[in-house]
Amino acid sequence: MEALKGGLELVPGYKFSAVECGIRKKDRLDFCAIIADSPCTASGMFTTNKIFAAPVRLCRERTGKPVRGIIVNATNANACTGEEGYKDAVALTDTMAKAIGAGKKSVLMASTGVIGHRLPVDKMLASIPALAGSLSAGNGALIPKAIMTTDTFPKSAAAKFCTSLGGFTIAGTAKGSGMIAPDMATLLSFVITDCPAAKKTLDTVFRKCINNSFNSITIDGDMSTNDTALILSPVAKECIKSKNDIAAFAEALGYVLGELCRMLVTDAEGATKLIKVNVVGARTAGDARLAARAVAESLLVKTAFFGKDPNWGRIACAAGYSGASVKEENLSIFIGDIPLLQKGKPLEFDKNIINEILSQREISVLVDIGLGNGKTLFMTSDISYDYVKINAEYTT
Amino acid sequence: MEALKGGLELVPGYKFSAVECGIRKKDRLDFCAIIADSPCTASGMFTTNKIFAAPVRLCRERTGKPVRGIIVNATNANACTGEEGYKDAVALTDTMAKAIGAGKKSVLMASTGVIGHRLPVDKMLASIPALAGSLSAGNGALIPKAIMTTDTFPKSAAAKFCTSLGGFTIAGTAKGSGMIAPDMATLLSFVITDCPAAKKTLDTVFRKCINNSFNSITIDGDMSTNDTALILSPVAKECIKSKNDIAAFAEALGYVLGELCRMLVTDAEGATKLIKVNVVGARTAGDARLAARAVAESLLVKTAFFGKDPNWGRIACAAGYSGASVKEENLSIFIGDIPLLQKGKPLEFDKNIINEILSQREISVLVDIGLGNGKTLFMTSDISYDYVKINAEYTT
Repeated sequence: MEALKGGLELVPGYKFSAVECGIRKKDRLDFCAIIADSPCTASGMFTTNKIFAAPVRLCRERTGKPVRGIIVNATNANACTGEEGYKDAVALTDTMAKAIGAGKKSVLMASTGVIGHRLPVDKMLASIPALAGSLSAGNGALIPKAIMTTDTFPKSAAAKFCTSLGGFTIAGTAKGSGMIAPDMATLLSFVITDCPAAKKTLDTVFRKCINNSFNSITIDGDMSTNDTALILSPVAKECIKSKNDIAAFAEALGYVLGELCRMLVTDAEGATKLIKVNVVGARTAGDARLAARAVAESLLVKTAFFGKDPNWGRIACAAGYSGASVKEENLSIFIGDIPLLQKGKPLEFDKNIINEILSQREISVLVDIGLGNGKTLFMTSDISYDYVKINAEYTT
Repeated sequence: MEALKGGLELVPGYKFSAVECGIRKKDRLDFCAIIADSPCTASGMFTTNKIFAAPVRLCRERTGKPVRGIIVNATNANACTGEEGYKDAVALTDTMAKAIGAGKKSVLMASTGVIGHRLPVDKMLASIPALAGSLSAGNGALIPKAIMTTDTFPKSAAAKFCTSLGGFTIAGTAKGSGMIAPDMATLLSFVITDCPAAKKTLDTVFRKCINNSFNSITIDGDMSTNDTALILSPVAKECIKSKNDIAAFAEALGYVLGELCRMLVTDAEGATKLIKVNVVGARTAGDARLAARAVAESLLVKTAFFGKDPNWGRIACAAGYSGASVKEENLSIFIGDIPLLQKGKPLEFDKNIINEILSQREISVLVDIGLGNGKTLFMTSDISYDYVKINAEYTT
């Protein structure tokens, strides 16, 4: 595998476009399309929220069969919009399909933004000729921009990889940056590759890679109504055959999703720090996830990191209520490589050294539960004044 | 039942004292005692955190038998302090018991404050003569002050009630104000009454009343290592005999705990608003609790209320991921008495009226799930800049 600079535009066989439709805001790209030159196998992972947006329902229905592409709008989630909202998504995708000469139901849709408002369908239908007309292989960099809501920078990652049947490219984009919780992919993410994969292979590898990436980051613990991660791969002679092929594909996909995760957490609303929560020594892998998630989601831990406060007691406390097996006398906690708690004993530490570690942009925490071999890594952000500001002023 | 102005000092049969011991800070009351004139039946509810403080262990061991009182210190939690921390608590309580002429193990202890530091035992032992020497029935108002950490005001409530065997008084105090989550009493709370109750009655009624009060408020979702709620009642001829007696006692206890809850949420770190989350129409009472808790704990909901933002979509979203049965087409949401979502349909609303409601200090939200008869009330606060500030700067 080789990491590449750039994004979607590096993958042969796809075209892109984005327009300023004015869905909720003027003068910003807010409606875009990713269209493949030929039919693609699609795999999707979606929110597990019982209130899910119309486009999620539509994708769930359509990812079983080959598709030609995806249209995406920002600033309006098309959630809590009932049957009408669903019909809007159907009308928009069918019109796009017709505009590119593809069959009905062959276009997917994703939406992000405010909940509870109908899409301005007439305006959006009127934009479809422009969307279809401006599709170009070179437009890949428009997509990460067009899907942003409160994100402060566009997010892309790409890689080359080889299977036994040739060399291929994979690239992805994602948008954050609040309402990010594990228990599903998060937010919106779109990955494309020119490597033909069987539906079953695509589903299995995508699910596994999502669990190790989007399902291991947390920003505010809120799971959105619209969480959607989609991957497209051309329908053609399968090029992922052997165990080694699968490993090569998974490595490249894992790299792309991992890079997107790092960008998402770095760009978390109002975040000043990226915090890696490593849990080791848990009785089981499940326990490791419970503990890591509790620490990563604890408001008290997150505000302490914002304040450069080596308050390891809050980390111990969160591990203690996580539901994982935890015994005080076995628990050790490190910040950076400095031990603060060793098998239940608080240690003296040099405040200047800890302060230096806590002043970094990226901080590692190690929680050794000391009861087994279960381990995991979660990424999270701190909580700052700006998180409150951004989220207090979102719809008003 | 009759609500009373005042607190612990209103209950006959108890004495109180508090001193400035200088445990972590100078010039503040930080060590106090509640001592009964005669042995008391005790009932306690404690944190379910697997990392629990030494005084919690001590109380769990001692509440099975009659006790004479409780000593409490603020600013240091005596948590993650291992066997030494437990021995410290034993030494302090035994010394206090001796000073008041009571038997070993007849004094309970509670601590609150920073985790992972040994108590300054020598200093505290040296303060015990002053604590024991200044006990007075009139000192009740000192206790709420001495137990505060980041609380901005002392919290007390009291009531009179009658059983078939006479008139009695009950009073309580509590301290918050971060790290408040359901799943146990929260924080520290001490309730005393002059009404003799059997151990079993006391346990049952206390548990039930705690579930409807402290276990139905949430501030930041973090469950502390030290959560302790204790109630004392004199060992004497039982005065709670009939079903009506129990109801009268439960009403008065419920009132005292309810008032303390309201004060705790009002005084939540950095809070500007108290938000009552009423859930009705849930399939079960358990579902109602799941939904109410998810809404009350959602950072996005809490920041929206801080920003006076009628973003009901975040409420719907939280109900959707709560784990409760929820169907979009049955869900209704009201802020104040204004319907914003009715059976899945977003409604137009007058922004000025909503803004007026959202500008109040106390706001009611009603979530009607529309699937059954399960209902509950949770209280929570908004999240403001000050929450972040207070918690970013706590130990430093």
